[in-house]
Amino acid sequence: MKQSQMLIPTLKETPADAEIASHQLLLRAGFMRQNASGIYSYLPLGFRVLQKIETIVREEMNRTGAQELLMPAIQPAELWHETGRWDVYGPELMRLKDRHNRDFALGATHEELITSNVRDELSTYKKLPMTLYQIQTKYRDEKRPRFGLLRGREFIMKDAYSFHADQEDLDKQYQIMYDAYTKVFERCGLDFRAVIADSGAMGGKDTHEFQALASVGEDMIAYSDSSDYAANIEMAEVLTADERPNEDLLPLTEGENNEQQNRSLNYVCFKANEKLVVVYVRRDDEINDVKVKNVLEVDMIELLSDQEKQAAGLDPFHLDSEVIVLADNGVKNIVNGTLHVEETNKDYINVNPERDLSIKSFYDLRFIKEGDPSPDGKGRIKFARGIEVGQVFKLGTKYSEAMNAVFLDENGRTKPLIMGCYGIGVSRTLSAIAEQCHDEKGLIWPVSVAPFQLHIIAVNSKNEEQMALANRLYEQFGTRYEVLLDDRKERAGVKFAESDLIGCPIRITVGKKAEDGIVELKVRRNGEVIECQVNELDQLIDAHLKD
Amino acid sequence: MKQSQMLIPTLKETPADAEIASHQLLLRAGFMRQNASGIYSYLPLGFRVLQKIETIVREEMNRTGAQELLMPAIQPAELWHETGRWDVYGPELMRLKDRHNRDFALGATHEELITSNVRDELSTYKKLPMTLYQIQTKYRDEKRPRFGLLRGREFIMKDAYSFHADQEDLDKQYQIMYDAYTKVFERCGLDFRAVIADSGAMGGKDTHEFQALASVGEDMIAYSDSSDYAANIEMAEVLTADERPNEDLLPLTEGENNEQQNRSLNYVCFKANEKLVVVYVRRDDEINDVKVKNVLEVDMIELLSDQEKQAAGLDPFHLDSEVIVLADNGVKNIVNGTLHVEETNKDYINVNPERDLSIKSFYDLRFIKEGDPSPDGKGRIKFARGIEVGQVFKLGTKYSEAMNAVFLDENGRTKPLIMGCYGIGVSRTLSAIAEQCHDEKGLIWPVSVAPFQLHIIAVNSKNEEQMALANRLYEQFGTRYEVLLDDRKERAGVKFAESDLIGCPIRITVGKKAEDGIVELKVRRNGEVIECQVNELDQLIDAHLKD
Repeated sequence: MKQSQMLIPTLKETPADAEIASHQLLLRAGFMRQNASGIYSYLPLGFRVLQKIETIVREEMNRTGAQELLMPAIQPAELWHETGRWDVYGPELMRLKDRHNRDFALGATHEELITSNVRDELSTYKKLPMTLYQIQTKYRDEKRPRFGLLRGREFIMKDAYSFHADQEDLDKQYQIMYDAYTKVFERCGLDFRAVIADSGAMGGKDTHEFQALASVGEDMIAYSDSSDYAANIEMAEVLTADERPNEDLLPLTEGENNEQQNRSLNYVCFKANEKLVVVYVRRDDEINDVKVKNVLEVDMIELLSDQEKQAAGLDPFHLDSEVIVLADNGVKNIVNGTLHVEETNKDYINVNPERDLSIKSFYDLRFIKEGDPSPDGKGRIKFARGIEVGQVFKLGTKYSEAMNAVFLDENGRTKPLIMGCYGIGVSRTLSAIAEQCHDEKGLIWPVSVAPFQLHIIAVNSKNEEQMALANRLYEQFGTRYEVLLDDRKERAGVKFAESDLIGCPIRITVGKKAEDGIVELKVRRNGEVIECQVNELDQLIDAHLKD
Repeated sequence: MKQSQMLIPTLKETPADAEIASHQLLLRAGFMRQNASGIYSYLPLGFRVLQKIETIVREEMNRTGAQELLMPAIQPAELWHETGRWDVYGPELMRLKDRHNRDFALGATHEELITSNVRDELSTYKKLPMTLYQIQTKYRDEKRPRFGLLRGREFIMKDAYSFHADQEDLDKQYQIMYDAYTKVFERCGLDFRAVIADSGAMGGKDTHEFQALASVGEDMIAYSDSSDYAANIEMAEVLTADERPNEDLLPLTEGENNEQQNRSLNYVCFKANEKLVVVYVRRDDEINDVKVKNVLEVDMIELLSDQEKQAAGLDPFHLDSEVIVLADNGVKNIVNGTLHVEETNKDYINVNPERDLSIKSFYDLRFIKEGDPSPDGKGRIKFARGIEVGQVFKLGTKYSEAMNAVFLDENGRTKPLIMGCYGIGVSRTLSAIAEQCHDEKGLIWPVSVAPFQLHIIAVNSKNEEQMALANRLYEQFGTRYEVLLDDRKERAGVKFAESDLIGCPIRITVGKKAEDGIVELKVRRNGEVIECQVNELDQLIDAHLKD
């Protein structure tokens, strides 16, 4: 494409509301425009990148044998009533009425719709397994849209759904999709981790999130410095490494708390299903709600307010038998520890958990910390922030049971379909790449998703010789690469600055030495500049694009 | 793809609410499923066809130099207020509120959005012309969704918008898009006409609709039997061919109306901008409202009710000078004609229009009829029904003026951008192809958009030899064509019937003679069957797919 004919509205100033680099640069380099809060137009450059990501996703999905279809964004409320999600989804689900006053949702996700599409079709085990996917626009009315495409209200997702006769078959497909996702994000040039995640309210079991590492990410990841282990920090298992001190148990007594931190105990009181729960951890550890919930097998726990604590009159040393007492594994090896009881403002020493605190069993209940041993036994834990670009999820039968999507098994028994679901944030991936791949001058696109591979610049577009050579190279390389030719009547400085801003992998500058057939090749990624004869370009470009 | 693993939910019965062939067959052959009235899922077969149409559209658009972008479906109401369309669009525009109670439209069209995207960018003539397009989902809350994808509420369109410094440049681009549309529909295998259409309420001048000929079409087209002339019937110009009889004018008198029809006059009374309008035509002709409106240069005319006619006390022979009197060209050559005056129930003979009826000038005001000479002077007019699959439109400055989208011309003067817009109904094109290309057994896809080019059927999937050969052909041809292999354990009759229903261009049947290396090739289009050696297949397939 000739730049003079393209819509690339670059901005000199950084828009005030763009807080992070990807958002700023995608706007400044003219890849997109905001039309409303969290709602964007992809301009020609942005659309080209989007299309490349979509192609990568499509190729890897097709390779797994998944079939592409396309479902509507507008979904009848009746389907969402079947699963109960019409009422529980909240204001993030955008809703509208048609001219006949019927209720519809704008699809935030398509579990209901896909299940309604297949429920009368996959009626026998013979038609299973089946995996269907679409690349489609999704809607979520975010409370606080921000960070450009990272948290938008209209965005593009690839969502896939698989249907199985048994758990084993789902497990197999889950691994296939996991591997395909790994390929997708590798091909997109992302630095990412597949992290163990919380299945939370979605109601299934196993799930992994694919997190692109970035300091602006909203999720915190714990990963091993020596293996590919990674988990959302609330999911990272803690190995107990401490040894139990070989000391005699001393008598419990009031006393000043001057012990070392790792002998100091702390407790927190919760309410879960109307029952009181007291959870002990070491004072230097932090209780992980998710783990407490999982141990209690409840969906929600609430911290007891000060008032409620007063009312309950909890005395840690004389707890009512109704109270559930849990302790983190780290508490197990405390001998002659200390405890401060807030309610009475008293300090105790020589506290021995099993003897004094009605603790019957110990669990992994705390957040992992940097420096902890990795749960897979390899290396130590480090923390990083991530942008969730994909998720694979074993849904189980939540939707098939609610919507009566059943099949006949080999023995003629009716069973609910076992489902998996698999999402990739396509537009979010675009942003995540921009977030990882930029410098202070602009974007640095990986070759696989670059809007153009080559950017040819005629330094002086009034110079006929330069323009002729630039045009010749444009024609010549245009048959093999995607080439952007800056044929504008702009100052050279403007052209160079905008070229760095746009971030094509290779820039070819046609300047004063054009008459000698000499041009300059610049590698955007590392700034390397090579002056060369025109006939050497071919090989140099090939070598650098393959790199 | 192996058919056993694909979601192709064929139906034996025709769904009750599917009235036309394309709707019935796309449902029966498992190309799509309805999710709500006028809202569909494209299942894998339907999606494949859709994708091919999109690719054809994209290739032809890119060839014109148009740039692809992608705008959001959700559009802020403010933009629609700028053009006033928020209030005038009516219930077809789907509307919703976000969690902050702000108003949004689901895009039925994108003139406002594209204009807002470019209005600060195309600020000088140097950046013009520019053409931008997208392939995107559109929403229109049709009063009566019907005919499957032909009149849906969520559908896929290609919409393009061009921006120009002057009318001449728009004219040039209009022709380029017109030619590209011709290529698109030719490549899709459609029998279509580019017809002169009414610019109506859109507010521009020139416009052509691309109409796929089909008896179920909602539009009536007048076309020449000897040239490529075609127009919507309300737009077709009428040539006046009659000669004026060389007779003396006789005195006007009351008398019985026993003249031949072509001397008989008729008149109709309208109201336009509060003025009375009387329009004369020959009794065997029909007044064309659109032409009357265009002559009067008004947006709307209303028929006078009987009461209003009585109140006005119109006497055709003594009309008030305030009344506008128009006559169709066909009236001009009437000599000694007849007229029945309904208001007084009297008949007159020897009526001579210019002498007796205050007629000052004659215009083309009637509908064209079959058999009339074609307006381009070539051949005679025939009528056909059409499905509108595309439209090209010279918008002018309607949107740029309303939204203050201006540029500086070469002389430094501020002018509104001159716009064109160009739409293709992508999902409607899919339906139109199905409507034109089918027989009583099922669909007959043109090669260019077929979901698969080859359908290989193993007659008896329990027969190892047959399955081995079918698989071998599947592998062999899969490298060059898209191949669907029917590997299901179904009866041969079911396989054949469903193959005809799905409608791939070529079927290869592997049956009893598999052991002798003999198979059968069947051409779906004409039913031709060729028994051949496996090694002859290559050439036969090539020949038939190129046909």
